[in-house]
Amino acid sequence: MIILKLGGSVITRKEEIRPTLDQENLQRISQEIADSKVEKILIVHGAGSYGHPHAHEYGIGNQIENNQDLTQKKMGFSITHQSVQMLNLEVCRALINEDIPAVPISPSSFIKTDKKRITDFKIDLINEYLDLGLVPVLYGDVVLDSDLKIKMAVLSGDQILQYVATKLAARRVILGTDVDGIFDRNPKKHPQAQLIPTVTSQDDLNFLEGAQTTDVTGGMSGKVEELLKLAQKGIESEIINIDKKELLKRALRGEDVVGTRILRKL
Amino acid sequence: MIILKLGGSVITRKEEIRPTLDQENLQRISQEIADSKVEKILIVHGAGSYGHPHAHEYGIGNQIENNQDLTQKKMGFSITHQSVQMLNLEVCRALINEDIPAVPISPSSFIKTDKKRITDFKIDLINEYLDLGLVPVLYGDVVLDSDLKIKMAVLSGDQILQYVATKLAARRVILGTDVDGIFDRNPKKHPQAQLIPTVTSQDDLNFLEGAQTTDVTGGMSGKVEELLKLAQKGIESEIINIDKKELLKRALRGEDVVGTRILRKL
Repeated sequence: MIILKLGGSVITRKEEIRPTLDQENLQRISQEIADSKVEKILIVHGAGSYGHPHAHEYGIGNQIENNQDLTQKKMGFSITHQSVQMLNLEVCRALINEDIPAVPISPSSFIKTDKKRITDFKIDLINEYLDLGLVPVLYGDVVLDSDLKIKMAVLSGDQILQYVATKLAARRVILGTDVDGIFDRNPKKHPQAQLIPTVTSQDDLNFLEGAQTTDVTGGMSGKVEELLKLAQKGIESEIINIDKKELLKRALRGEDVVGTRILRKL
Repeated sequence: MIILKLGGSVITRKEEIRPTLDQENLQRISQEIADSKVEKILIVHGAGSYGHPHAHEYGIGNQIENNQDLTQKKMGFSITHQSVQMLNLEVCRALINEDIPAVPISPSSFIKTDKKRITDFKIDLINEYLDLGLVPVLYGDVVLDSDLKIKMAVLSGDQILQYVATKLAARRVILGTDVDGIFDRNPKKHPQAQLIPTVTSQDDLNFLEGAQTTDVTGGMSGKVEELLKLAQKGIESEIINIDKKELLKRALRGEDVVGTRILRKL
């Protein structure tokens, strides 16, 4: 079973303040997934410009100050979820157009966190969808949190990916982003930046000058942290650039492609 | 706690073959809910023209004939869910526009049936949303079914309503439709049809000339069957016409309005 993460920066125009789809990318990526003919696949996608601006604006996951703040955060929860679900609908529409039987699985409908980490997550049904040959599509969302100080939290697609990959003992995990992998410097600023082919611990990244992209869920460093947790459990993953044509299709088919592999420390 | 069902025939143009929203009705109804100032409410809505044509076309819930049929039904599952979720998004958008913190709860993400009746349904999270003052919005959907002959089923909003009302011990259950209640004859055909003010058993309805409206989930007779199950458990409900202005607002405020009450048999 393959777990594929579609980064919010690839399927949306993340630099936009308003939710903006990258329709062209989404369509091409859906086609590459269909063309790869993978049999058992679960997809998780990020929120990009559909989630981060809202979550920021309402401070979902920040401490609740008073009743008025709670009222605002509740509306913010509602609005943020509505927005990310709209993106999810677009992703599923693109997949369905390529004859992929996508089934959106809505995190806020059944997942809870405590201090922003997943506690309740019934995985059985997702397994049954996979067994039947349907393609579950999860996404970064807002969820209820047991911590009474915050009550609501942003749940990143990356944390979902890590959780699902562990529970389902995924054979492969592919993180599709808009960069070739992890670099020693920000490749968008430094043309001489070098790609790091393998990472086995957070120490490998200490020299980095901060996250290469920023979002409410922690940017690249948050992603790698989740993937290192996976690697410790024996599930290795790869970060690849799915903005580049055919790369995802080739990776799904099992070919070696350029990227960064997150491996277990020996 | 009040459970409100918004009939698919009210919020969509059910006679249409293609999914068509009744935007005007939906906006007015959302406003009436907001104006009523009810504190704790859960909403379930039907699928109307967003669900029935697709579910029919692919025969979701019918016996699976062969592999080819299964492949088609899987795509049908995906397409039907996509469509009802689009309706759900519109309903939640209308509610959010009236400052109601709606949270869609997606049945296919966590509910399973066996022979088309709910078996798995974790209600805790819904309860927590209600306690926090958010408004869960559930809907008629397609779900996985344990019966290997069908594997997938249509789950009606009415069955969800019955299940949720029982588990949450709802104080009131309001079924909003496009007719005044249950009549002794089809009021759309017979101007002399008489409204039946109370129903306590299926026997009260034996004289009916078939369901007054038809849909894949059993029409009015299917609805009354679910409500009679509720009444037997001590939860009484009322069927009212929310196509008529102000009726829903008045009912939510606790006023007596025209309709049919489904009561426990004494």
